[in-house]
Amino acid sequence: MKNVLITTLPFGKTDKTSINLLKKNNINYYYNPKNKKFSRNELLKIIGNYHGIICGTDKIDRAVINKAKKLKIISRVGVGLNNLDLKSLKKSKIKVTYTPGAPTQTVAEYTIGLMIYLLRRMNVSRKSLEKGKWLKIFGKNLNEAKIGIIGFGRIGSEILKLLKAFHCKDILVNDVNVNRKNLNKYSAKKATKKEIFKNCNLITIHLPITEKTRNLITKKEIAMMSNDTILINTSRGGIINESNLYDALKKNKIYSAALDVFAKEPYLGRLRKLDNCHCTTHIASMSTSCRNKMELEAAQEIIRFFNGKQLMFQVPEKEYKNST
Amino acid sequence: MKNVLITTLPFGKTDKTSINLLKKNNINYYYNPKNKKFSRNELLKIIGNYHGIICGTDKIDRAVINKAKKLKIISRVGVGLNNLDLKSLKKSKIKVTYTPGAPTQTVAEYTIGLMIYLLRRMNVSRKSLEKGKWLKIFGKNLNEAKIGIIGFGRIGSEILKLLKAFHCKDILVNDVNVNRKNLNKYSAKKATKKEIFKNCNLITIHLPITEKTRNLITKKEIAMMSNDTILINTSRGGIINESNLYDALKKNKIYSAALDVFAKEPYLGRLRKLDNCHCTTHIASMSTSCRNKMELEAAQEIIRFFNGKQLMFQVPEKEYKNST
Repeated sequence: MKNVLITTLPFGKTDKTSINLLKKNNINYYYNPKNKKFSRNELLKIIGNYHGIICGTDKIDRAVINKAKKLKIISRVGVGLNNLDLKSLKKSKIKVTYTPGAPTQTVAEYTIGLMIYLLRRMNVSRKSLEKGKWLKIFGKNLNEAKIGIIGFGRIGSEILKLLKAFHCKDILVNDVNVNRKNLNKYSAKKATKKEIFKNCNLITIHLPITEKTRNLITKKEIAMMSNDTILINTSRGGIINESNLYDALKKNKIYSAALDVFAKEPYLGRLRKLDNCHCTTHIASMSTSCRNKMELEAAQEIIRFFNGKQLMFQVPEKEYKNST
Repeated sequence: MKNVLITTLPFGKTDKTSINLLKKNNINYYYNPKNKKFSRNELLKIIGNYHGIICGTDKIDRAVINKAKKLKIISRVGVGLNNLDLKSLKKSKIKVTYTPGAPTQTVAEYTIGLMIYLLRRMNVSRKSLEKGKWLKIFGKNLNEAKIGIIGFGRIGSEILKLLKAFHCKDILVNDVNVNRKNLNKYSAKKATKKEIFKNCNLITIHLPITEKTRNLITKKEIAMMSNDTILINTSRGGIINESNLYDALKKNKIYSAALDVFAKEPYLGRLRKLDNCHCTTHIASMSTSCRNKMELEAAQEIIRFFNGKQLMFQVPEKEYKNST
């Protein structure tokens, strides 16, 4: 019988399918009975007993891997891999799988909702009314904004598709791999990051965190932006320099920002106190249907592995190269 | 030379096209130099000099009309007509035009933004983080909600179209005039209001305010709803009974509401203090492009009228029947 540690929370809360599948396949799973994340010490203490992990954003670094003598597979519920020391995992011949497709629609939809919310200044109107002031305030339609999408993988592409439904025609896209033909279909153009910083007033980021993307946006890049710019990051923390962003928002160098992700989470820094910074708790992929889909895919990979079947969502080779 | 009073504010602020058109056509326009709305007394005092009005939500009732001896046309910037005493205007042979098409895209987009924002509980996450709590909270994708659209005119139809882009397949629509074939195309079904209250957990209202729609949703209708229901009104105030809604939200009888419109505006009532009521200041049609479009259409009607040309957007006969 194989022992699997579930470190991500919640798991199997709104849909029992994944838990039932593990049971049915004789997987001896265990999660924290206190219904909270294991502390690092707890994790180091118990990890040696487990053949597999179903994890979330928990840090699996060399120290953990060194203790994980029986570990053969990590199945990541989600898509970001910056919490995993992929190079050490490779050295220890531990397989890593993830669920890259599951959050696409959910994160794209969340980002579109944020875009409309910020463009229409709903929060400014709401706050004014809470304070007893009937403020008539103008916003912009999505198709009045010059939109820049940085990172054109699954989520960036899905956002572009959705923007078409809103009649957007002024979109710049930046990515190493962009199919120009596809862009034409959506009235979008390929651009450099610099062109996006200089020309767009609604910029959304959909990148992984790597050494190349960390601090991609600092005061230098913000200085290129116009003062009506709205900056959105629902991908990974650390891509926008938080200290530089704070200074810029404080001085209204740009109009507003929305961050769902932070360099260190849980985030308790100064940005969350700014009226023009919409900070949320890394929930862009947290819809019930997305979560259930991710949990199911992660459980199925564990089951495939221990039943000797081929894995479907192994982390691709390029992720190991990007790993920090 | 014709005198035209502009009572709506702002006008010609972000785009001078309308103002320039009035000038070019020798229209002697006047607006409040204090850059605020005329008081009722001011309006009563000066209205007798004007041949036309370009108005917003300003109340034009019998007392105003009786003083308006030269008035021949009212050109309403916007679509709601509840501020105008249409019956008295008809009796005085004063023409009324409006701009029904201009806000469609803008209000529909605003409503979609609100839907995503509330379904994903962004406000709950943001507020928790402001208070220093990293709350992991699940929401729903748009296509996880059972959506009810009450009122299927221009805006209701546009919302249905946009929802298709988000893969929604569980939509009920209520209106006297619904084309079932059109609904099939969007995976939506015709339903009674009662069916919507009982089966939908995301209900959005797109109706005019008339004697039939006033207090359409009271405690009786709210009692039919499930406790995860989100109720949105971006159409006209008074359709949802505000006092009954307050009681329901206070007791979590339904999950949340978003009101952009109120029975009496400016609104300063209790709902704006509730965490689960997203109150804004009647801004759903307030995008720059929409405003410019409405102003231009309203100015063009005034010019057509005084140049003896046919009006394009006269208020239809049925609106006079509904008028209170």
